[in-house]
Amino acid sequence: MEIITLPDAANWESLIHRPLIDHHLIYDTVTEILEDIKSRGDEAVVHYNRLYGGAGDKNLMVSPSEIEQAVLRVDDRLKSAIRTAIQNVELFHRSQKRRVKRIQTADGVICWRKQVAIDRVGLYVPGGTAPLFSTLLMLAIPAKIAGCKKIVVCSPPLKNGRLDPAILYSAWSLNLENIFKVGGAQAIFAMSRGTSTIPAVDKIFGPGNHYVTAAKQLVQLEGTAIDLPAGPSEVLIIADGKANAAFIAADLIAQAEHGPDSQVILATDDASLLKKVAAETGKQLKNLPRAVIAKKSMRNGKLILFRNLNDAVAFSNLYAPEHLIIMADNSRKVASRVNNAGSVFIGPYSPEAAGDYASGTNHTLPTGGYARSYSGVSLDSYYKMITFQEISEEGIRHIGPAVATMAEAEQLSGHARSVRIRLESIKKPGL
Amino acid sequence: MEIITLPDAANWESLIHRPLIDHHLIYDTVTEILEDIKSRGDEAVVHYNRLYGGAGDKNLMVSPSEIEQAVLRVDDRLKSAIRTAIQNVELFHRSQKRRVKRIQTADGVICWRKQVAIDRVGLYVPGGTAPLFSTLLMLAIPAKIAGCKKIVVCSPPLKNGRLDPAILYSAWSLNLENIFKVGGAQAIFAMSRGTSTIPAVDKIFGPGNHYVTAAKQLVQLEGTAIDLPAGPSEVLIIADGKANAAFIAADLIAQAEHGPDSQVILATDDASLLKKVAAETGKQLKNLPRAVIAKKSMRNGKLILFRNLNDAVAFSNLYAPEHLIIMADNSRKVASRVNNAGSVFIGPYSPEAAGDYASGTNHTLPTGGYARSYSGVSLDSYYKMITFQEISEEGIRHIGPAVATMAEAEQLSGHARSVRIRLESIKKPGL
Repeated sequence: MEIITLPDAANWESLIHRPLIDHHLIYDTVTEILEDIKSRGDEAVVHYNRLYGGAGDKNLMVSPSEIEQAVLRVDDRLKSAIRTAIQNVELFHRSQKRRVKRIQTADGVICWRKQVAIDRVGLYVPGGTAPLFSTLLMLAIPAKIAGCKKIVVCSPPLKNGRLDPAILYSAWSLNLENIFKVGGAQAIFAMSRGTSTIPAVDKIFGPGNHYVTAAKQLVQLEGTAIDLPAGPSEVLIIADGKANAAFIAADLIAQAEHGPDSQVILATDDASLLKKVAAETGKQLKNLPRAVIAKKSMRNGKLILFRNLNDAVAFSNLYAPEHLIIMADNSRKVASRVNNAGSVFIGPYSPEAAGDYASGTNHTLPTGGYARSYSGVSLDSYYKMITFQEISEEGIRHIGPAVATMAEAEQLSGHARSVRIRLESIKKPGL
Repeated sequence: MEIITLPDAANWESLIHRPLIDHHLIYDTVTEILEDIKSRGDEAVVHYNRLYGGAGDKNLMVSPSEIEQAVLRVDDRLKSAIRTAIQNVELFHRSQKRRVKRIQTADGVICWRKQVAIDRVGLYVPGGTAPLFSTLLMLAIPAKIAGCKKIVVCSPPLKNGRLDPAILYSAWSLNLENIFKVGGAQAIFAMSRGTSTIPAVDKIFGPGNHYVTAAKQLVQLEGTAIDLPAGPSEVLIIADGKANAAFIAADLIAQAEHGPDSQVILATDDASLLKKVAAETGKQLKNLPRAVIAKKSMRNGKLILFRNLNDAVAFSNLYAPEHLIIMADNSRKVASRVNNAGSVFIGPYSPEAAGDYASGTNHTLPTGGYARSYSGVSLDSYYKMITFQEISEEGIRHIGPAVATMAEAEQLSGHARSVRIRLESIKKPGL
């Protein structure tokens, strides 16, 4: 990890830089897949499943018997852990429901907004090096709470043609029915357009590799909503001299093991902590199963010494990390000054891993600086807010003249007339 | 307008079709503008302002004296109307603030979300055939309420090199300072990247022509958030036999005068209403200043007879209109069954024009069927929701084992260790 000491604020911009991933380069490949799925449907989906290393089963849908077998194969400890996670994630996301507030903006003018579930959502659960059943939980639980009528799940099959039992157990726990053994860009396009087996959806959620991300960008241009622009995962830790170096090292490594492009940063006001963390990191990396991956991303990691924690927070706000862990004497006060971050972990007993799995917060979060303008996935992500207004005779008498005046000033006489014809009918009832 | 009688539900899909606008065709042009702005900054902005019909002033920023002069030139009736609109829009958007709810998901585990304003927002106010100061109000009022630190406004200059006085008066009323005489794709790129005069922003709002829309799509891929995918405006009216045909015709015409590609649909269960509306429309189109535009879009309009209002609502939900007006015996009951729409206008005295200007709701809404998955602009659009979690010793003892078990099952041992190292330190304090 690079140690950076008291960087000048003028140079912070260069330190927040993430490697830019240019998806344009793979658009051609991905567009070919899209065109093929448009013309051949399921046949093309099976073809790309085979081509890109997955199994070649023609039955794309997971059968009830596959689910039954999977439920038997997951051990009790994991089942119980998954139940704990479901409980906490449900509780937190349920609390995000919004009640309807009817507002009288003027006499006789009532306005309100109503949360209405998006009808059909598609959830992409990546496979690859690890079976990410936690992603399924994070994406499906709010969809169930919102009441989406159709929840479609796609995940790449293992070499044996099946999905990982923990993924299927999670799906079974949430009563999900439309689960398909499809991965990659083909999964995104199949859900976006629909095929004879895979239902079309209105919005697609979930992380994935560059092909999945590029495919999501393309379908967004064609009218299917997506959750978030996805990128490599990140953690920034703000810590002072009292923080536990071993905890910090463990959290940096946890982030680094995600992938070689993971971003890890420590921002502190204590020079000795930097050294302790560097030493602890070396120690803890031994015997880590995914040490090769973790070491690769640690190489781009940064340990930065700031003059004080205020500077560390200011830097973090500029960087806008996906995950921000705060271990300081007064972590809460530091947290209150955060204005750009995906999810914030306050205090020594709040490791990022807790939020990844079971604290209750969602782990689908904005990366790459997107936290400046995007929120993570939440119950909101599964709703549209529809606005309503009900205006009475009295109401239109109140606001009608202003509306007509403004419409005329915008040279939209038809708009003005649609108000005036009503005002005149009130003056002359029976018109 | 086309009259369609009792269409079979199997054929509804063909009736909800909107003309697809393929922005790919203009990406090349727009990308050229982007590259030029990347290399030449303001100089390129001035160049494209001149090239695309705008005035060629090198001073892009609106000066305080221009604003002062504009304020003097707006007549009192319009000023008062704008003040009414500001008041109502402010009241409704202020009511959308969310309070922080701290949720204990498990003993010792507290999670919450906090609304934090997006630092820098860019508002695009189209010029062209009419000075759309109402768009500035709709986009800037929630930005002010949210507390965005930097609010940048771009709008294309008139032939005289100035902005319309009503736009400047609106900006002055809201204490906006960063107003630039820049239109088209160049405005979007300038706000996305920043130039020496125009500040960079994190999110761009506002409608525009195809070039503006294509530019917004491109900057979204490069990391600048956008409000909504924009398209031609639409209205669908659900009405029964008791509805006032003159009101309906006026509302259809108001929508049609927006542009030749506006979409207007009437869905009713009463055959005689169709005829009355057709006759009224013809009558009202006479003397309409924008009759040429309105007639063009009316030609693609549809008057559809359904078996009953239930079918009309089901059709509307499939169509997902930007604006939905309901004039029926029990409009409220019909409204309660709406699940896809941008903004809903309930009853005879709620014309769309009221929501366009002054009822309080926002007029920046999802078009082209996007209402199936997108909400209109609201106070939410100017915030990120940051999640926080604070876990105590007790909390990590509660959820830690579940987290470690799940992490191991996902083959992420580093994650499991980041929890176990904490659990062990609690067992053996002082570690």
